[in-house]
Amino acid sequence: AEEAADEVSKYSVPVVRMKYGEVAEATSVVVLPVSEAGEGDEGVATAPACRTDGDFGVLTADKAWRRWVVLPRWDPLAVIGEGGAVAVGFPDARVLPWRTNRWEREEPVLVVADRTRKVVEEEGFYLVSRVGGMAVERGSKLLEMDVEALGTVVLVVRPPKDEFDDQLQDEDWD
Amino acid sequence: AEEAADEVSKYSVPVVRMKYGEVAEATSVVVLPVSEAGEGDEGVATAPACRTDGDFGVLTADKAWRRWVVLPRWDPLAVIGEGGAVAVGFPDARVLPWRTNRWEREEPVLVVADRTRKVVEEEGFYLVSRVGGMAVERGSKLLEMDVEALGTVVLVVRPPKDEFDDQLQDEDWD
Repeated sequence: AEEAADEVSKYSVPVVRMKYGEVAEATSVVVLPVSEAGEGDEGVATAPACRTDGDFGVLTADKAWRRWVVLPRWDPLAVIGEGGAVAVGFPDARVLPWRTNRWEREEPVLVVADRTRKVVEEEGFYLVSRVGGMAVERGSKLLEMDVEALGTVVLVVRPPKDEFDDQLQDEDWD
Repeated sequence: AEEAADEVSKYSVPVVRMKYGEVAEATSVVVLPVSEAGEGDEGVATAPACRTDGDFGVLTADKAWRRWVVLPRWDPLAVIGEGGAVAVGFPDARVLPWRTNRWEREEPVLVVADRTRKVVEEEGFYLVSRVGGMAVERGSKLLEMDVEALGTVVLVVRPPKDEFDDQLQDEDWD
């Protein structure tokens, strides 16, 4: 599904829109712990580190967890540091620090972050703690404000949509 | 993957051997909580009931759990009662109450049971509590002994194997 994860420039983060049945069609899948934006930084910090092993590829988490999501092993997911992956569910896409279509703002998004990469770089996007939850912020802004990151955003997943649309159109990629 | 789950007679339980990459090729997958045979009936009783929902098909368990497995949605898995599915890992296949090849006995097996079906029937196979763990037992034997079942075995999964072999050959299906 490389074609789905469109890296437009180094000043961006890949955004994919899931297609119905896409997990099924994937050539490989990953299982990630899910936390909700409202749970704040604790939800991200306490989400388990996971490994898969044995004959059946059983996933073993370093602690028990209630919410999980299966995603195709898109390129950005394949390079996350061991045990670093967490998916954070946001109720709507207004959390994204770039301009999106009005209807897209109302959709939920799943933001996948790598907790092993907390060092803020100018061109990156990061998951940060906010009063009452979490936000996605540009590295440039975090460097200005000297704010710490919970992890680097490696992928933003939009929900499946019935009609075809060009997911990148009308988005502000800087 | 219907062809893989071979139901030989009503006096049997489907046995499948995973193929490498099979989860990836599956047209649909399921995520099941895993418990280990050594954890005994408590491991089965306490494994969470799960549902998937929302735009991203997030799996929500009714309690936190550490071990999970992704399997193709083989037919027997599609009909398990809601929240009833649990996969139990056995270190070797001697737990199966039918004759198998010597080399197969040394392989680990994953036994998938439906905890919503505890009523023992003559022709079924069941997960039962044993001193030091669990066992798979024929319904006919349980009825004789008046032993309660933890759940009905719906599928036995063998690990992937390098060479091709006819998984059903030399097995005693009664």
